[in-house]
Amino acid sequence: MITLITLKNVPPFAQGLVRDLRARWALEEAGIAYETRLLAPGEHKAAEHVALQPFGQVPVLQDGDLTLFESGAIVLHVAGKSEALLPADAAGRARAAAWVFAALNSVEPFIQPLTEIDLFNAGEEWAKLRRPAAEERLKARLGQLAARLEGRDWLEDRFTAGDLMMATVLRIPRHTELVTGHAVLGPYLARCEARPAFARALAGHMAAHVAAA
Amino acid sequence: MITLITLKNVPPFAQGLVRDLRARWALEEAGIAYETRLLAPGEHKAAEHVALQPFGQVPVLQDGDLTLFESGAIVLHVAGKSEALLPADAAGRARAAAWVFAALNSVEPFIQPLTEIDLFNAGEEWAKLRRPAAEERLKARLGQLAARLEGRDWLEDRFTAGDLMMATVLRIPRHTELVTGHAVLGPYLARCEARPAFARALAGHMAAHVAAA
Repeated sequence: MITLITLKNVPPFAQGLVRDLRARWALEEAGIAYETRLLAPGEHKAAEHVALQPFGQVPVLQDGDLTLFESGAIVLHVAGKSEALLPADAAGRARAAAWVFAALNSVEPFIQPLTEIDLFNAGEEWAKLRRPAAEERLKARLGQLAARLEGRDWLEDRFTAGDLMMATVLRIPRHTELVTGHAVLGPYLARCEARPAFARALAGHMAAHVAAA
Repeated sequence: MITLITLKNVPPFAQGLVRDLRARWALEEAGIAYETRLLAPGEHKAAEHVALQPFGQVPVLQDGDLTLFESGAIVLHVAGKSEALLPADAAGRARAAAWVFAALNSVEPFIQPLTEIDLFNAGEEWAKLRRPAAEERLKARLGQLAARLEGRDWLEDRFTAGDLMMATVLRIPRHTELVTGHAVLGPYLARCEARPAFARALAGHMAAHVAAA
């Protein structure tokens, strides 16, 4: 049995973005049943959880004796169980993994500075001074991604774990129209989010995170 | 035959940090021969390279018909060829992958804001205002990593690709003593860098990047 550990209550700005969504989506695509264990407020910083997740973060996936953290590793682990998320051939699997890493290490690092400014430091002087450059850098990076996606439905020739991860990263700047208003990336994200497995994952995610305290 | 594509000349601040070092180190640990193709200045932005690497970055690894980008994906691909970098059991492999992702997505994002300030924006007003918070956040994150490493030689019970990736990330803030002066992380990084395969990788890396124009 697979158990997914995540937070119970999260504030509205994080609902729909907490990284357990990635794990839920992968599990739904693969058709693998799982149960959840929801951490009460503050519990993610307790020694018992830090023993499972060294940075006090979520999600954690328990699969039999294996305890796994980092949403990227969890998605690749789940993806390895099902051709719904990865092609059968080794080269196709390596390419999908490349896109998982690209989402997390070549796209998200350009989103993070903008969300850090807009969501957590909007009133700060440094944030006002820095915001134009942060937005320009993100636009340029999104443009590179869009160039790859132009004329394609997916990052490779079929949906893979790479698209799953990229979509969850592209959801992050939802307080702007940089993605949703983009001629290529907007439809790409909508295509990813239209998958039935995404809808089931999001429903489970929201049900957990919006639960009354 | 494996070909590693990277930059020829890079400025001193980047020498020893360009991400081809990760791929070289993995190949050296695995004992796999490779050749390199060095891009002349500006060539990484040309259409021919962007067709291989959508973000115009390095490294790219070519392994037969497979063209692979993202240093994380390259390291895991090479690691899959050799028990020098990954245990034989599936659970041990998943745990090592978790640390590769942790290095790139849970540690590097805390280093990046500080290097962006110190290396590229030191004279800017916003950078002066933001630096104290950026340093505090990085120290806290390094403290969590150190708590995991205290009393251990490696992140798991043996050296894996996870240590390789973590070490290359911990090298980045080398303009400070946040890592090298740390009671736990300093010796850990030194332990990683003392591996003969790292020395061979760094020598090849420097020879390429410091080549006269």
